[in-house]
Amino acid sequence: MCASCDDTFASPGPKSELEEGMALTPRFGADGLITAIATDAATGDLLMVAHMNAEALKKTIETGEAWYWSRSRAALWHKGDTSGQIQTIVEMRIDCDQDAVWMKVKVGGDGGSCHTGRRTCFYRAIPTGRPVEGLTLEPRDAGKLRPAFG
Amino acid sequence: MCASCDDTFASPGPKSELEEGMALTPRFGADGLITAIATDAATGDLLMVAHMNAEALKKTIETGEAWYWSRSRAALWHKGDTSGQIQTIVEMRIDCDQDAVWMKVKVGGDGGSCHTGRRTCFYRAIPTGRPVEGLTLEPRDAGKLRPAFG
Repeated sequence: MCASCDDTFASPGPKSELEEGMALTPRFGADGLITAIATDAATGDLLMVAHMNAEALKKTIETGEAWYWSRSRAALWHKGDTSGQIQTIVEMRIDCDQDAVWMKVKVGGDGGSCHTGRRTCFYRAIPTGRPVEGLTLEPRDAGKLRPAFG
Repeated sequence: MCASCDDTFASPGPKSELEEGMALTPRFGADGLITAIATDAATGDLLMVAHMNAEALKKTIETGEAWYWSRSRAALWHKGDTSGQIQTIVEMRIDCDQDAVWMKVKVGGDGGSCHTGRRTCFYRAIPTGRPVEGLTLEPRDAGKLRPAFG
C-alpha cells in the first residue's frame, strides 16, 4: 500500500490556502503519515499520540471512531476493536499546516487507551526546573486498569 | 549538530525499562527528534504540536519553559523569545515508549501559541460521521490575537 500516493484527499496548496482555507488537504509525511492526538473530551487529559495514513484518516472521519496506522505492526488499526477501548470522537480538528489532527474522544470499554493497561500513555511526570543529570521520573495516573497488551 | 548522537540522555533500555522504569531515556527518531505537545494547563485545549531534539528537551526541563527544534529553520527555538509567548510549564510528562512529551503550559504575552496569530494551532474542525468527499473544515477558536508571523 502506498499511503503517500493515496488520492483520497486533495494535495496541499500554497501556504495561505493550507493555513487559512477550509479545504482538508492533509500533509502526509514521507512515511505517508500524519500525527494523531487523542485527548479525553471530559478532562482534557492527553491520552495518546499515534499516527494515521490516508485510509485511517478517512475511516476516522467517516465512522466517527479513531482509526490509526500501527507503525510497529504496519497495519491499519481500529482502536478498541479487540479491547473494547473504542475512541468515539466528540470533536476533531486539524492544525495550521495540516500535518496533525486532534481528537477529543470518549473511550469505551474499561476507559483505557494505553497498551500498558493504563488510562493514558502519559503516566510519568518529568520534574522541571532542575538539572537533567540524575533526574528520576515520577508516577502520575499510573494505575493499571488491566494487564499490558503485547 | 548531531541531535541523535547527543549524550545528554542515557540510551533507551529494553521495553520493560522504557515503559515501566523511572529513568528518562527518550527515543529520538532518525531525525534526532521527539514529538512535543503543549496543552493549556487551565482549559486542557491542545495548543500546538512541535518537536524537540536533545538540546531543546534538556533546556525545557532545566528552565521550565518550552524550547523546541524548528524543523523549518533548522534551529533551536525558545518559544516566545521574540513574541513574548513564553510557555511556562505547569507539568511535563513522557509517554509509554518515551518518544513524545506532553507539557501543560501557561502562555505569556498575548496568550497565543500559533504562528498564524491565533491562540491554538487547531482552529479548524473536521466534521465527522459523513463522507470525506466534499468535506469542508469549520472554524473553531479562529479569531486572531495578532497578525501572522513569517
